[in-house]
Amino acid sequence: MTGTAHPTLIVLDVNETLSDMSPLASAFEDVGAPRAAAPLWFATTLRDGFALGMAGQNPPFLELAKDVLRTVLAPYVADEQQRDAAVQSVLDAFAELDTHPDVPDALRDLREAGIRLVTLSNGSARVAETLLGRAGLSEVVEQLLSVEDAPAWKPDPRAYEYALQRTGVAAERAMLVATHPWDVDGAARAGLRTAWVNRSGIGYPASFRPADVTVPSLADLPMALTAG
Amino acid sequence: MTGTAHPTLIVLDVNETLSDMSPLASAFEDVGAPRAAAPLWFATTLRDGFALGMAGQNPPFLELAKDVLRTVLAPYVADEQQRDAAVQSVLDAFAELDTHPDVPDALRDLREAGIRLVTLSNGSARVAETLLGRAGLSEVVEQLLSVEDAPAWKPDPRAYEYALQRTGVAAERAMLVATHPWDVDGAARAGLRTAWVNRSGIGYPASFRPADVTVPSLADLPMALTAG
Repeated sequence: MTGTAHPTLIVLDVNETLSDMSPLASAFEDVGAPRAAAPLWFATTLRDGFALGMAGQNPPFLELAKDVLRTVLAPYVADEQQRDAAVQSVLDAFAELDTHPDVPDALRDLREAGIRLVTLSNGSARVAETLLGRAGLSEVVEQLLSVEDAPAWKPDPRAYEYALQRTGVAAERAMLVATHPWDVDGAARAGLRTAWVNRSGIGYPASFRPADVTVPSLADLPMALTAG
Repeated sequence: MTGTAHPTLIVLDVNETLSDMSPLASAFEDVGAPRAAAPLWFATTLRDGFALGMAGQNPPFLELAKDVLRTVLAPYVADEQQRDAAVQSVLDAFAELDTHPDVPDALRDLREAGIRLVTLSNGSARVAETLLGRAGLSEVVEQLLSVEDAPAWKPDPRAYEYALQRTGVAAERAMLVATHPWDVDGAARAGLRTAWVNRSGIGYPASFRPADVTVPSLADLPMALTAG
């Protein structure tokens, strides 16, 4: 980690870092698709969003997620009207995800240690608002930021710069916390400190810049940042 | 399609557009992973490559593909040495793919109609060389281009501009042919004409710029381009 002082600001990724996406597998199963369609859908949505980002675009996450759902569900739900209903059913499940069990106490502990907390999502601020509201964390996070108001999706450096600008914090005093190596890598290249939440225990990919701090759970982050 | 004259140059995508990737499902099965790991691996490799692209990088496709394979196979192949062998086994299968059955005659017909043909891949030129060599098409395609020699991966506009520069053809006289909507979209934004090969019959996603020409098979492209 750069420096010994804890960061002034933590920028939290939302999807999969705060939210537990495992119930989505059942949502796909409920509409007749295999459980394995859930991770394929999420990876493909990010793939397509990043592709549009490379082409200079900043697409609305939800529209893209719907588009990809239609494609992913097509082999399993042939009827178009039924497919639209299936798409809506999966999106409803996506909007009703809960946080991982390690999230609420960890965010409260970080806040009590005097660290400012914001979210920065490629999705809409509304999804983060519902997620944190359901977990009783609305007061703990001071701003719910979305790349919808930034020039580009993460991991374009302008997405992280937008969060710094909205909070008035210098890059080297901010830390991006995410479970996705591509997010850690992008934040590191934009000059932020980084923490990787590795709940799966699978190794960090060599193609990405490593995190300053790696924790097996968000519960370990407050100690990792305030110890020493 | 812009204009009535056929294009001077066709820029062919390689992975999945020319190559039939369906045998990869068995390659994953052979190392103990589910067949559904194959599309997840390919979507995730592109996702991570595009993420690095947004962060200003131009990573080697094969290194990234290996990284992602290690992650995707980890839940099924716990032992690290066995996992390395499993990674190599899938990569070997990837290097030995054949073209879709509609490819060889279509490329010969396009060439006979006087259209110049090059490939442009996010992967290495070597994969394209092996693929086309096995199909007896080495003489039909005049250059095998890779983004390894360009400033960035497709769909960054600089990748398409690199192909135009290497062939000396103006954007409006060139046509990108791909099975991936993100590639069609990127080429259209870079000013090229586009053809979408829709072998699956699933609809085109609304978030992407539509193709000038849509064909259910590459076999239909020569007629679509040369018919008055």
